Amino acid sequence: MISQNHTTIKTIAAKLGISKGTVSKALQDSHEISIATKNKVLEAANELHYKPNHFASGLKSRKSKAIAVIVPEIVDSFFSLAIKGIETVTQKKGYHINIYITNDLVSKEKEIFKLLSDGRVDGVLISICRDATCSDHIKELMDTGMPLVFFDRVVEDIETGKVVTDDFKSGYNAAQHLIEQGCKRVCFFSISENLSILQKRVEGFKRALSEKHITNADNSVYQISTDKNKCQETITSLLSDPDLRPDGIVISVELLTIPIYTVCKALNISIPEDLKVICFSNLQYASFLSPPLTTITQPAFEIGEQAASLICSAITNNRSLKNEKIICPSQLDIRNSSLVY
Amino acid sequence: MISQNHTTIKTIAAKLGISKGTVSKALQDSHEISIATKNKVLEAANELHYKPNHFASGLKSRKSKAIAVIVPEIVDSFFSLAIKGIETVTQKKGYHINIYITNDLVSKEKEIFKLLSDGRVDGVLISICRDATCSDHIKELMDTGMPLVFFDRVVEDIETGKVVTDDFKSGYNAAQHLIEQGCKRVCFFSISENLSILQKRVEGFKRALSEKHITNADNSVYQISTDKNKCQETITSLLSDPDLRPDGIVISVELLTIPIYTVCKALNISIPEDLKVICFSNLQYASFLSPPLTTITQPAFEIGEQAASLICSAITNNRSLKNEKIICPSQLDIRNSSLVY
Repeated sequence: MISQNHTTIKTIAAKLGISKGTVSKALQDSHEISIATKNKVLEAANELHYKPNHFASGLKSRKSKAIAVIVPEIVDSFFSLAIKGIETVTQKKGYHINIYITNDLVSKEKEIFKLLSDGRVDGVLISICRDATCSDHIKELMDTGMPLVFFDRVVEDIETGKVVTDDFKSGYNAAQHLIEQGCKRVCFFSISENLSILQKRVEGFKRALSEKHITNADNSVYQISTDKNKCQETITSLLSDPDLRPDGIVISVELLTIPIYTVCKALNISIPEDLKVICFSNLQYASFLSPPLTTITQPAFEIGEQAASLICSAITNNRSLKNEKIICPSQLDIRNSSLVY
Repeated sequence: MISQNHTTIKTIAAKLGISKGTVSKALQDSHEISIATKNKVLEAANELHYKPNHFASGLKSRKSKAIAVIVPEIVDSFFSLAIKGIETVTQKKGYHINIYITNDLVSKEKEIFKLLSDGRVDGVLISICRDATCSDHIKELMDTGMPLVFFDRVVEDIETGKVVTDDFKSGYNAAQHLIEQGCKRVCFFSISENLSILQKRVEGFKRALSEKHITNADNSVYQISTDKNKCQETITSLLSDPDLRPDGIVISVELLTIPIYTVCKALNISIPEDLKVICFSNLQYASFLSPPLTTITQPAFEIGEQAASLICSAITNNRSLKNEKIICPSQLDIRNSSLVY
């Protein structure tokens, strides 16, 4: 086979003995070119397997038809499902998606933002990283006119599109369920004090506790490291201390599930007899865990779809996004890990 | 803030009262331009927040610094982990990755290949879809000079880079383990007759059976639909029939795990007492399932890393890939689902 990579407007022009400008105008269906010439050009383009060049089209339109999707993690049932929702929409609308994984590091997030300032993408979808102490890099890119939509993990004080779940209500429902199951000392395991969605889950959690006059509400929230060893250490020391040990835990993120199941097994703490557990999770295996895990199930796929629709509409209609917030409600899926034995 | 989006070579030229050509050459450090002019241009470029345009650079270099990653599914622990491995390498080497999900449909795979012929990416990493009946679209893109590496699911008769696991040996080990645990009627659940990696797993499986003189080897392989309802129907009818019902199953792909656990629960078939189960899976929750699942664990992250290294080296060194096969061995992780009770 011949290499078709090198067929350009110049090749077609040379073959037909006409100028590059004529070929270019003919391919753009310009009124300046006769129908006969257009037909000749199209025939030659077909014969030579001419493909319009991505960069040439982009340079003309200043559109890449690509969207950046920035996530903290991909080996996670929430984010992989959200990406699937995004891809379902972007694919239909003719957009490509570039995936960037921050590993929950703001330093990596900043590096990624530097890369995006060259026009490579037409818009950005982002779920920010855990140590969200700085958002200047996000504001800077938006100031260049780049449309950006947050999904799940948002920066509250940046005005733009946001797609989230009902975090306050979900935290409230989780705590209420544990209290209804007879828990007296309920704790909340978080991974960040900075993420607004976790703050809201904590607020809802505390509201339920104070309404039921559970008095440990002030010292009931623990920040757990996401480092595997540190995480297990913290949980072990908390569950080993008779004065601190909770009888119910709300876990804010899926990645803490395995450490909690592991520590309980090691310490011979039985779920749910000794400890009731409920987790924010999209794990499709929740029903098959031992014991089956009660979850606050977020509509991850739908959150992805909504975020993608919003960014595509902003790009296509060249409209700037106001503080538009779409809230997709989560649901409480009760399984054995939180039920009275 | 002013919009920085519109600073172009023209803006800089206008500010300094020199030609666009001079600015362009100065920015490319051309010997035709004096040092004094270069300094003036660089100063103005900095002041105006000039960013080189992705399309303009691409048009010049014909490189996009992007790699397409095509997978059948993303909500799957093998593929999400492989993508993470890919991203770890591409990020270090300065490449962007575009993700495409085929949903295991060859029609969607073909559409994606059409989109990639415009120079948007410099290379392709692909794990092909289940109904791999046609690979003309892959050959066509490769004929244009596009570097391509297969990972996990490969097309055997296309000569290029391939990164896989030791499928024959893994199938052999899985069957041998079940036979050692006393199984007399061992079956293999596949999802495709066309995928070469599944054919190899079946071959290894059959070899172990014939070596141990297990006589059902010929009718021991079942093709299971990936449609949720059809899949459960097939498994239910097989496990309900006393003449057909196996006492050991090797599951070729992770997505069949939930249907098997579901059907066994519904039919009151106890794993492992009545039925021993072993699955090709990267599920990090395998130890916490009820019962804990024995897995053939593929080095998914490493497969992704190796595939990414291969494609980056092919692009950077402009070298065509011969039939280079990298084999990353899997390991058998024995848990309760396959052990003598």
